[in-house]
Parts: sequence; C-alpha cells; structure tokens
Amino acid sequence: MKLYSYWRSQASYRVRIALHLKDIQAEIVTLDLLKGDQHAPAYRAVNPEGVVPALILDGRVPLFQSLAIVEYLDEQYPEPRLLPADARDRAYVRALAQIVAMDAHPFIVPRVRKYLEHELGLDEPARTKWLSHWLDAGTRTLEHLLARDARTGLFCHRDALTLVDICLAAHVTSAIMLCGFDIGPYPAVRRVFDRCMELDAFTATHPLRQPDAPRND
Amino acid sequence: MKLYSYWRSQASYRVRIALHLKDIQAEIVTLDLLKGDQHAPAYRAVNPEGVVPALILDGRVPLFQSLAIVEYLDEQYPEPRLLPADARDRAYVRALAQIVAMDAHPFIVPRVRKYLEHELGLDEPARTKWLSHWLDAGTRTLEHLLARDARTGLFCHRDALTLVDICLAAHVTSAIMLCGFDIGPYPAVRRVFDRCMELDAFTATHPLRQPDAPRND
Repeated sequence: MKLYSYWRSQASYRVRIALHLKDIQAEIVTLDLLKGDQHAPAYRAVNPEGVVPALILDGRVPLFQSLAIVEYLDEQYPEPRLLPADARDRAYVRALAQIVAMDAHPFIVPRVRKYLEHELGLDEPARTKWLSHWLDAGTRTLEHLLARDARTGLFCHRDALTLVDICLAAHVTSAIMLCGFDIGPYPAVRRVFDRCMELDAFTATHPLRQPDAPRND
Repeated sequence: MKLYSYWRSQASYRVRIALHLKDIQAEIVTLDLLKGDQHAPAYRAVNPEGVVPALILDGRVPLFQSLAIVEYLDEQYPEPRLLPADARDRAYVRALAQIVAMDAHPFIVPRVRKYLEHELGLDEPARTKWLSHWLDAGTRTLEHLLARDARTGLFCHRDALTLVDICLAAHVTSAIMLCGFDIGPYPAVRRVFDRCMELDAFTATHPLRQPDAPRND
C-alpha cells in the first residue's frame, strides 16, 4: 500500500491516523504542495484533482478523498471499528466528521490560501482573519454539539474512538499550526483533542514527525 | 419525518432527491437563509450549526449534513440502493460525491458569499469570478475522472444511479442558477446531468419547484 501525503495536510493526517490505528503498513510518498508537486503530470495521472491524500492499494485505480479512504479501510480492516454499529449513531459520527471536513477544512487548504493572496490580493492579516473565522466557526459548532449531546463521552461518541475524533484532532492540529488557534474557549473539543494526543496513532503520524516536515536543527 | 430545507440549497436538494427516490414522505419546512432564519434560536436548537438540511425522524435528535443523511436513508431504506455493493466501488462513489461536497460546494454557500461581500468588500464581478472558479475546478475534476474511468456508464458509476449522481446533478443545478455556469466544456458531466434530469426524483424536487422558490407570476 502506498499513501501520497504532505506533512501539513489535514486530510493526509486523517488517513495516516486510520492506517496506524488499524496497524496497516503503507509506504509514504511525500508531495510538496507549496512547490506544486501535486500538479506534476505523474501525480495528475494518479489523482486528476491534484490534491492529497491518494491511496494506492495494489497498482489499480487509486482511492482518494480522505473520508472515503477511511471508510474503506474501516470496512476492510474492521478492528478497531471507526464507525458505530447503530445507524443513527453512525449518521451522527459522519455528520460531525463532515462538519469538519466540509464546513471548516475547505477554507484553509493551500489552493484557497493561494487564491486569497494572488487573486484577491489579501494581505497577511486579512488571510489570517479568514483562516481564524472558519476554524472558529467549525470548532464552535463541534463544541455546541458535544456539549449538548448525551452521547459525548471520553471521545466525541461515547468512550470509543471514531472517525470524528480523527477529524477533530487533525482539525485542531492544523488550526494550531496555521494560526496559533486557541482552543481554550472550547473545553469539550479540547478534552477530546487532549485524549487523542495521548495515543500513539496520533503522535507517531503527527505532521511534525513526517519526513517532509521542516526540521528544527 | 420533517426536512428543514431552503429552495436554493444544494445540500437540501440532495436530500430531497434521495427521499423521493426511496419514496419516503417528509414534511418540508422552509427556512429563508438570506433572511437569516437559520440563526433563529428555535432552529439553532435543532441544528447548532445553523445550516440546512436537518432531518427530524421522530422528535429525537435530528440528523444533519446531507451526505450523512443520504447514507442513513440508504441504510434504512435500501431500495433503490445509492451506494454500490463492492467496497472499492463504494469508496469511488463516496470520493466523487465528496469532491463535489467538500471541494466545490463549500465555496458557494450563502455564509461564504456574505463574507466575500461584507468582510472582504468584493464587488459583484469579483464574487462571480470566485464562484465560477470553484464551480469550474470541481466540475473539471469530475469530468477528468468520468472520462478516464472504465466504470463510467449511463451514470457516474455504471448504469445505476448512486449518491454521486445526486451530488453531480445538484451541483450543476446550483451552478447554472447562481452564475449561468456553462457545462458545455464538460460532456461527460453534462450527459449524466441530462440523464438525471429525465427522472421525476430530480425534477419534482427541483429548487424552482419548492414552495419557497421565487414565483414567476
């Protein structure tokens, strides 16, 4: 198995966590999204959208889109299961994951930051305000939902880790790295984040521990 | 069953199509997103995110996020099935649906258009350029994938309608309504769109046929 990844990509991080949780070995192939590696013809042949991650299973048509990849892995490698057995609970976990993946994450990816800078000519403070606005909106929604729902436990859905915890932890990690986001005002989100960060699957696959991450030496 | 919907909401349209395909009766409750109905406390109590759709099944915790809702309906009302039986095909259909829902749709929703206008002060041509840019990028990706994949048939995945066709048709419908988007350069997308639009499930639930749509009289 081969995963195309970029150290700071939130969506790549989600897949790395799922692979680690399920004890699946995958070769990591890094692309530098800021240098435009994702637009090279060789990668466009893998994923015409020119985004990461993409997962090659066995040389056949690759899988892409992180949530679809994680659901595939969960179906094929059921332990530990990342989606609840009950249909309504599953819909709830998917919905929370999608709040992160569809209503917060899209606004902070490199191609959008590039549009803001080069097409709209926004200066750095205006770009940071944009990032903070959407990161804040997504985090606030998660906080409201976790605070009101009786299903909130040690993790977002009761006491077992699911897809939404993966999304939450990767989201908070991105937010902190991108603009020093303060999760203090979001105690329920922070509690789940802290718990995730006690687990090897989240620390061993962390963006800053990737081979393409900037080095501090 | 009760669906909170807004006539022009692409995500609401996805759920209306799925309900119709599965012959499920649901009361439609309309919110005017431009007037801010979604921020009223009564609706925030239903969905703290303040977006549509939300689906109330039986007075208990509502479901939200359109793709999570459609997957729930597909699990509970399996005919006609909207996700393929094979795991890789399912991942492919989910990925294509997510390209629309995560990489195109987020950029055109009312709260983003509002930010562009009021926070960034973009004029109408700059806002239209933004909409066209992301609608075009998403449509181009779908076109590349449909054109290269042997699984493309009468619909995106072989000859049976799936979740991705629902997303594609709702996406194209939004794009045409919002900025007169031209799908001429995307023949594979157009072919699937045209085929969807021959079906009652797509025409009877069309935005312009909603009770809250603007009237031409």
